[in-house]
Amino acid sequence: MSFKMRKNRLPLQDYLQGILHQDRIVLSKAITLIESKHPDDQQLAQQLLTEVLPHTGKSFRIGITGVPGVGKSTFIEAFGSYLTQQKKKMAILAIDPTSTQSKGSIMGDKTRMEALSMNPYAYIRPSPTSGSLGGVARKTRETMLLCEAAGFEIVMIETVGVGQSETLVKNMVDFFLLLMLAGAGDELQGIKKGIMEMADMLVITKADGTNKAKAQLAKQEYENALHLFRAPQNGWHPTVQICSALKNEGIASIWEQIEQFHTTTQAHHFFSENRKKQALHWMYETIERHLLETFYHHKQVKILLPTIEKQVLAGTLLPIQGAQKLLKAYWKQAPS
Amino acid sequence: MSFKMRKNRLPLQDYLQGILHQDRIVLSKAITLIESKHPDDQQLAQQLLTEVLPHTGKSFRIGITGVPGVGKSTFIEAFGSYLTQQKKKMAILAIDPTSTQSKGSIMGDKTRMEALSMNPYAYIRPSPTSGSLGGVARKTRETMLLCEAAGFEIVMIETVGVGQSETLVKNMVDFFLLLMLAGAGDELQGIKKGIMEMADMLVITKADGTNKAKAQLAKQEYENALHLFRAPQNGWHPTVQICSALKNEGIASIWEQIEQFHTTTQAHHFFSENRKKQALHWMYETIERHLLETFYHHKQVKILLPTIEKQVLAGTLLPIQGAQKLLKAYWKQAPS
Repeated sequence: MSFKMRKNRLPLQDYLQGILHQDRIVLSKAITLIESKHPDDQQLAQQLLTEVLPHTGKSFRIGITGVPGVGKSTFIEAFGSYLTQQKKKMAILAIDPTSTQSKGSIMGDKTRMEALSMNPYAYIRPSPTSGSLGGVARKTRETMLLCEAAGFEIVMIETVGVGQSETLVKNMVDFFLLLMLAGAGDELQGIKKGIMEMADMLVITKADGTNKAKAQLAKQEYENALHLFRAPQNGWHPTVQICSALKNEGIASIWEQIEQFHTTTQAHHFFSENRKKQALHWMYETIERHLLETFYHHKQVKILLPTIEKQVLAGTLLPIQGAQKLLKAYWKQAPS
Repeated sequence: MSFKMRKNRLPLQDYLQGILHQDRIVLSKAITLIESKHPDDQQLAQQLLTEVLPHTGKSFRIGITGVPGVGKSTFIEAFGSYLTQQKKKMAILAIDPTSTQSKGSIMGDKTRMEALSMNPYAYIRPSPTSGSLGGVARKTRETMLLCEAAGFEIVMIETVGVGQSETLVKNMVDFFLLLMLAGAGDELQGIKKGIMEMADMLVITKADGTNKAKAQLAKQEYENALHLFRAPQNGWHPTVQICSALKNEGIASIWEQIEQFHTTTQAHHFFSENRKKQALHWMYETIERHLLETFYHHKQVKILLPTIEKQVLAGTLLPIQGAQKLLKAYWKQAPS
C-alpha cells in the first residue's frame, strides 16, 4: 500500500506546477500525498506545502455544520450551484469525526451532491478516513492550502455537528455556518450551546410547505436566544436565516449576508487578525498534541496508567499523586 | 520569607490531628503550607493530603460565579447565614483569576462578608494570590480536601465570571450556581454562553423594589433560553431562581432546590460518577500542565519561540513547520 503510493509519487516540481496550473488530477494526487502516513511522503508533502505557501490564503474559508438529517448535502448542493453559476470556483472538504472509527460517513456516498460533483467549478474531496481527529483536521487544513494554490476562491469545510470537530473547523475558517431544523424538538437537535456560540450565522433549513411557518417561528426564537449573549469580538452580530434548498429559496440572501460579513470583518482588520490567531493556534496545537502523544505512547506510562487510573477512581490515590507517579516514570527513561 | 514559613512549620501529626479535631488555627496553617512554594513545604503538604484522604469527600461542593457587581458577596453572606442558622458548617474559598496579576480582588477586602466572617459555623479563606491560574485552582482544590477533613459539610468555591476560572471551578464542584442581574443589558453582563451551559442553577439577584418585575421577566427569558438547549447528562434540568439578599427573599427556596439536586443526582449515581470523572480530569490536567510547562520553560525553546512566532504570524512559515523546529530544539537536549 505505502510502497504503491510512493511508486505513484511525482517529483516535487510536477506537483507544484500542476497545482499552480489548476490541474485537478495533480491536485488530487497531492492531497493523497498529504494524507499518506509514509515518512517519505510526509517529508515531500511538507516541502510541497512550503512551495505553495506564497500562493495560499486568498480564498474565503467557510465552515458548515449541523446534525445528521438537517439537510447538509442538499444545502451545500444548492449553495454550491448558486456560487458556481456566478463562476466562482469552490472546493468542498470534510472533517468527519465518525470516519476515524467507521471508515467515513460524510461524502463517502458517491451519490451525494451529484450535480455539484460534475460541476467544473466545484471540487469535492471526501474526508481522510484514518488517523486521530486532530490528525484528520491537520490534513484537511493542509488540503485547504493546496486548493487555494490551485485557484479556488471559496473553500467550504463540512463537519457533523455532534462532537469536537466543530472547534477544529472553526479554527481554520473565516466564517462559520450552523444549519438547524425548525420544530425538531430542541433536544433532538443535540446542538450544544458552545456550537451556537461559534456560529457567525444560523440557517434554518427545509423551510418549505407546512414547515415554513415553523421555520419563521424558530428564526425568532433563535434570534432571541442569540441576543441574550454578549456581542462577538469580530464586530459581527450572528444572524438567523431561513432557506429551502429544495425550492432554492433563501440561498441568494444567505450569500449576500456572508459577503457582508466578509466586507465588514475586512474593514475592521478582524479578518486578517483572525487568520493570524488561527496560524499561531495551529502551531501550539501541533506542539501540544505531539507532547501528549509522546507521553501517552511511552512504554512505562502505558504499563502504569491502568493501575493508577483505577486507584484515582477508587479514591485511594490523589489525582496529583497519580500524575507524579506517571511523570516520574516518563522522565526516568530518556524520551524516544 | 520561605525560611520563616518553614520555621513555623508543624510536624505532620500535629497538622493531621489538628485538622481532624477541627482546630481552625491548625487548618489555616495547613492551608498556608499547601500554598507555599518551598519544595520542603510542598512535600510535607503532599504527605498531609495523603493522610487526610480517607476523611475527605463528604462535603457538598458548590461553585458560584457571576460578573463583578452582581452582588456575589451579599448573596454568599445571606446564603451562608441561612445555612449556618441550620447549624451547617460551611467553608468559603475563592479562585480569583485576577489575583495572579493584581494581588487579589476577591475577598482581599476584610470588610467583605462581615457577619459571616465572625460566624463560628463559617470559615472564609481568600484566594491564594500568586501562581498561575491552574496552580491556584490546584491549591484551592487541595484546600477543599483539608476543609472536608476538618468537618465542613458545605464547601463553597467562589470565582469571578469573566474568564476560564469557571471551568476550573466547575471541575471541582458538585453543583454550579450562576448569579445574574435582571435588565442590566445583555452585553453588560458579559456572560459567555459556555458559562450558562455549565450552570446547574441561575439566580437573578437584587430582585427587590422596582427591580422585582424586571427579575421576573428575566427569569422567563432565561428559562426560555435554557430550554432551547439539550438536556444535561446528569438528569437535572437547570432552573432559574430570583432572590433578594437584601430582603432575605428566595434564599430558602434556592437551598431547597439545591438539596433536591443533591438527592436526584445521588439517586442516579451521577453524583459519584461526576466526582470520579473530576478526579481523573485533575490527574490528566496535572500531567498536561507539567508537560507544557517543561516545554515552554526549556532554554532553547524560549530562545527560538519569538522569532518563530513572528514568522508564523507573517505567514512565511507554516504552523506545523514552526512546531517542528521548536520540537526539534526541545528533544535535542535532554529535558531537565
